[in-house]
This record gives sequence, C-alpha cells and structure tokens, in this order.
Amino acid sequence: MVEIIDGGITTPQGFKAAGVHSGVKYRSLDLGMLYSEVPARAYCAFTSNNVKAAPVQVMMEENSKTLSAVVVNSGNANALTGRRGIEDAYAMKQAVAAELNLDPKEVGVMSTGLIGRFLDMHKIRYGISRAARELDVGREPDKLICEAIMTTDTIKKECAVRTRLSDGTLVYIAAISKGSGMIEPHVKVLHGTTLTMITTDATLGDDFADTWQSILDDSMNMVSVDGDQSTNDTCILMANGMSKSKPADHDPEFEAALRLVMTKIARTIAMDGEGASKLIEVQVTGADTKDDARKVVKTIINSPLVKTAIFGADPNYGRLMMAVGNSGCKFDLNEVRLTIKGGDMEVPILDSGAPIFQDERAVEVVRMAMDNKEVTIMVDLGVGEETATGWGCDLTYDYVRINAEYAT
Amino acid sequence: MVEIIDGGITTPQGFKAAGVHSGVKYRSLDLGMLYSEVPARAYCAFTSNNVKAAPVQVMMEENSKTLSAVVVNSGNANALTGRRGIEDAYAMKQAVAAELNLDPKEVGVMSTGLIGRFLDMHKIRYGISRAARELDVGREPDKLICEAIMTTDTIKKECAVRTRLSDGTLVYIAAISKGSGMIEPHVKVLHGTTLTMITTDATLGDDFADTWQSILDDSMNMVSVDGDQSTNDTCILMANGMSKSKPADHDPEFEAALRLVMTKIARTIAMDGEGASKLIEVQVTGADTKDDARKVVKTIINSPLVKTAIFGADPNYGRLMMAVGNSGCKFDLNEVRLTIKGGDMEVPILDSGAPIFQDERAVEVVRMAMDNKEVTIMVDLGVGEETATGWGCDLTYDYVRINAEYAT
Repeated sequence: MVEIIDGGITTPQGFKAAGVHSGVKYRSLDLGMLYSEVPARAYCAFTSNNVKAAPVQVMMEENSKTLSAVVVNSGNANALTGRRGIEDAYAMKQAVAAELNLDPKEVGVMSTGLIGRFLDMHKIRYGISRAARELDVGREPDKLICEAIMTTDTIKKECAVRTRLSDGTLVYIAAISKGSGMIEPHVKVLHGTTLTMITTDATLGDDFADTWQSILDDSMNMVSVDGDQSTNDTCILMANGMSKSKPADHDPEFEAALRLVMTKIARTIAMDGEGASKLIEVQVTGADTKDDARKVVKTIINSPLVKTAIFGADPNYGRLMMAVGNSGCKFDLNEVRLTIKGGDMEVPILDSGAPIFQDERAVEVVRMAMDNKEVTIMVDLGVGEETATGWGCDLTYDYVRINAEYAT
Repeated sequence: MVEIIDGGITTPQGFKAAGVHSGVKYRSLDLGMLYSEVPARAYCAFTSNNVKAAPVQVMMEENSKTLSAVVVNSGNANALTGRRGIEDAYAMKQAVAAELNLDPKEVGVMSTGLIGRFLDMHKIRYGISRAARELDVGREPDKLICEAIMTTDTIKKECAVRTRLSDGTLVYIAAISKGSGMIEPHVKVLHGTTLTMITTDATLGDDFADTWQSILDDSMNMVSVDGDQSTNDTCILMANGMSKSKPADHDPEFEAALRLVMTKIARTIAMDGEGASKLIEVQVTGADTKDDARKVVKTIINSPLVKTAIFGADPNYGRLMMAVGNSGCKFDLNEVRLTIKGGDMEVPILDSGAPIFQDERAVEVVRMAMDNKEVTIMVDLGVGEETATGWGCDLTYDYVRINAEYAT
C-alpha cells in the first residue's frame, strides 16, 4: 500500500539538500544542491529536443550510473551557449566535487532559465560553496531547494510517499520538480524545462530503465503547458539503497509507488503552467493503439482553441472534435463518446456524431461543468481498448503577459 | 508579367457574386454566392482533418469537375452535425440549383462558423433566394461576398491579377478568402476554416491537379494562426475559359500568376489571424529536405513562446532555436545562421552555436527589429539546399479574449 506522507526530497534516508541565493537572479533563491551520504544508483532522462542545453550534453556524454550530488541553477538555462557553456557545466560539477570531496563524475548538473546567455561563474561558484555548507535534512532544506529551482513557477512541486516492498522493507520515495513554461517534455532514459529530482532509499540494480521509461511516458511525458519542449528537461532518479531493501527493479510495489509520485508531480506541473487558471485532464479510451490514445490526448491539450475555450468556460465543444480529427487517430464518429466533467457535473456531449445539446439552455450545463478549477475531458474513440491520460492547462491572458515580457 | 490590379472575385470575365444577410448571424452579412455564366472547370481542395464538416463531406463525395456556382454561409460551420448536417448541405446545393436553373452537382457549398449546431434552413433558403437575385459584377458585389464569408476576420482578403499567357491571351485571376482562427490548413486536392474561392477566365484542362497542390503547399498550407486545422477548410478554383485561352495547365505564366495570388492571400490570412498585431514570416534555407524546411517553418510559427515573444518584442531568441531543435530537422548547430528582420533592420543572432549578443545594449537592437508590424525570421540550417517560407502571427491578449468568448 502506497501512503502519501508530509515529506520532501530529504525524507528518504541519507539525502540532504540546500537552496541558496547565488546572485544569478536578482533576489530569489537560484541555486539548489542535493546530496546523498552514500553513492546512489542514478537513472536519468533528458529532453528529446535536438538543441540540448550544455548541462544536458555533459550529463549525456558522461552517462554516470552513480551520482552522489546534483547541482541546479535557475535564472539561466546555459543553453545555446556553445563551447563556453559546456566548460561552465563541467566547472559546476568540479566545484561541487571539490566542496564535497567527490569525483566530478558523481555530480549531476541542471540549469533552467533564459536561453542564450553565458553563466556568471563567479556567482555560481559562490552559490555552490554556500550550498555545500548548508546541506541539511528536514522540511526547511526541502523547501529551500524547491524554491531555488523555480523560474516562473508559483507553487512548490513536491511529493513524498512510503510503501512496503515485496521483501517487507519500508522504503521512501520523494520528488521535487519545477516547470511552468516551455513544457512538453519527451524525456528519454539515457538519452523536461522541467527539472525533476527523485530520491529513494530503496535499492535499484541495473534493470530499471524500461520500467522507468514507461513511468515517465505515462507521467512527465503526458504533460503539456504550451507544446514547446525545452532544451533543458532533465529528470534524475537517485536510489541510495539505505533502506537495505533487495533490488526493487521488478518490484510491483515500488513501481506503483513511483508511478503515484510521478503522476502527482506531472499534474502539479500542468496545474501550475504559466498563467494557468485551470487544470485540464484528458482521458482517452477506446483507442486502436496506445500511440493513437497518446496523440489524441496531446492534440487536445495542445490546442489553443480548446485551451482558451476552457479558460472562458465557453461551451465550444466542437473544438474538442476538431482536435480529435487533427490527431490523425483512428475513430468511429458514430461511436465516439465525448464527456466533459467539472466539479460534481459529468456532461455527455455527443451522440451518433452530433451534439446532444442544441438549445442555449442545455448548452449552459456544459458551461457550468467547464467553470471549475479542474476540467476533465473524456473521449472514447469507439474502436479499441487502448487508453491514455494527460494533463495541460488553460491559455489565459497571464500566459501571454508572462511570455511577452520574459527576457526583460 | 503578372500585374496586380484593383479588382475582386468578379473581375475575371463571366463571374458574378452576391453577399446578403440571411439571419444566421444577428446583423452582419452571412451568405455569399458566386456564379459563372458558363460552367467552370473546378479544382477543389479540402481539409485533412478527419472530422470533416458536412459540406466538405458532400463535396468530396460528389467530386464534381465542373461548377457553375458556389454558396457559402458564415456563422455556422455545419460541422459535427451528423446525418442532418449532410442533408442540410445537399439542401443548400439544391436551393441554389433551383434558383439558378443548374444541376445541383454544379453547385459548390461551404460553411464556416460555430461547430456542433444545426443550420436554420429557413434562414439559409431565404438568403439563397435573395443572393441569387442580387448576383452582379463589379466592386460592390466583390465587397459584399467578401464580407458575407467573414467570421472573426477584420480585413477583406482579396487579390486580383492579370497576366499574359504563353499563347498571348490576357487572363485575369482573382481570389477571396476568409480565415482568422482555427487556421493551419493542410488542404489536399481532391480529397481551409479557411474558405477560399479563386476565379479565372483562363482555360484549364484535366492536368492541373499537381501544380495546384504544389501551389497550395507553398501558400495556404504554409499558414498557421494557431496550429488548429479546421473541419471546414475548402479551396475552390474555378476556371471558366471565357478568355478563350489554350489550356493553361502547364503554362508557367499562369502558374506564376496564381502563385502570386495565393501567396498574397496566405499572407493576408496570417496577418489577420485572430487577435494578431504582427505578421511573422519565417524563411528557412539550407535544409536537407523540403520536408525538413517546412517542419522548421511550422514549428517556429506554431510555438506559443515564439509568438508571445514577438508580440512583446521580447528579444528571447533562444526560443527560436528551441523550436528548431523540436522540429526534428537535421541541422548543424555550428553552421546555423539565425537572423531577425524588422523594418529596416536585419540583425544576425547566432555565431557558431552561441548568440552574438550578450550585453543588454546589444540585445536592445534585437528588440527594435522585433518592434515592427512585420517580423521576418530567417534560419539557415547549414546542411543542404532546400527552402521553405511560411506565415503566422503573434499570440496576443486579443487572441485569448476572442477565443474564450467565441460561442457566446
């Protein structure tokens, strides 16, 4: 049984964290550090964008299976920074290694913020030195590292659970994440700007990559705020084994707990999308293939017309079917069922290819369902058994404001 | 030599038009009719969205090679309207045929407006009867039909040219179009909500389909306002041969003239995208394949982060490379050249994979280039010879406002 607990990134045994102000940003915290007392088995996943930020290039190149620390700066993505950016990313790892007496290969590095500017390494080095001294366990460092990795985020993205593995060991899993704009991650194992760190004191061996990719494909990779995949998306899972569990690579209890954590993080990212006022969950069923189901979810949550309609609680459900039609999926229009859910209301929309409601008073019911902080769109394509679920947010005036003024 | 003239849809010989108020919309003109005195060879192209509006289904089913009239209503898309929608689309054709003494198969039909509501055929029949009586030649009916097909459009989309064909015949080509939101047409010959009608008094035979698709692929199909392809996109080219020209199917003069007309229409649609304050032209060169070049254009013009940055004249050019990386195209980051052009300014951005400008004063130059009604983004991918050009617009507060309140 997975149990959600009040905890953070340092709740699993042996992990410490810190968040400090280095000066890359004007005032807020901008440098976070995570440390494991014993080297942790690391499973990383990186953006599929072909323009990869320097820290992503460096981590993919080194491909370390063991990490003892991760350093993250916000305010500057160290992306599109050429050779100097690569050198700076290495220098960040070396500075952490020197402070914590580690091999630089054991240090993960992530950056997020503005693309196309060089890092001020003087500030970064100062921040690293300070963070290394402040590493600690507890809810205060949990909070500081969460804040330090934020950019346009407005809420902390944190989740912690405990579960008993099949071998009886009690283990903890915790995750923190940031991400609000430039969000449609397609992170690939070994190979989001969501930055996510997951800690666990469970033990992992060498055989977790496929399960990890499958969990990511159903969680992080089903989130889209704006359809723009970042150059920096990175997801690091660190398992330090301090619970003394047997390897949990194939333990269904561990997988279920990690799925829960990652799904919660994914939903939180969508909910806190730039300028968002509503969370949109899209549930597709009855698809011919898994790929079709995912495509329909993505086409709906990425449609500006769907997103603005939900923002305005405008019962323009024709746009949902426009998106289904654009996804390229297989469907049977006469069998398609479309339902909009919000609050206590669950409103069926389509019957035999035409809307159920035609008069204005009935349409008002749809508007009421859409007028909720969380709107669920359910589409049954009527041709198969495959399903997918994904998360996005509405497109608001604030999204435009935030992104028309970001660099300035 | 193609010459742009002050003309409209009835400028080519033998065409008449009308635009009336049928009552589908509350006040504005909402029903347009186009008529050719002699049956015209018709080349049609329709949306690739798999949810096709009733009029699109009907026209694809009939696949008429000859059209004498086209009827268009705005205010209601007759999409997602099941069997009743199909019957209504046929009824529109029949009503026109009865008024003008034609075979219903010679009548094209298009609809645009809200999806998922049944047409009020009483109003439509009244409008058809009135329009048939008002068919006329000249700048006044040109204007009325343009207005009658508009939805959220704010400017008339009209273009007329004359050119001398290789056989010496002077021919006229004219086009009108509507389209402001739900715009990323991928119209396919025989097989956007842009509705476009092109008239010409040139003669066309049976061998123009490939050239027509190629022109559409470089014009209409390179426009995106919001990446949402409509259920209704339709493009009808009517060539009535009244110039007595030889068949112009393979006449380079005719192709050049039609390309010019379609490119102008495409640009106008992008410029008048819902809420748009700026036209964005993206020119991609140095691509490995034509498909790569098109994908880069589309990824850039569809990126909400690029669109909002241009709205705010925010020199966040890193987002352009984020989009290039997401397109999946082949490129050499060290060879990529990125240039932003606006007004008299042409500002190179990248050198060897890193931005040229780092200090704030230099970045100000980029801002000034972006602070123009028309912003051109030039990307040379540095790996080949293929090129593509496309058009979009910025993402503004008004786009959100218009689409959060559309159905209401």
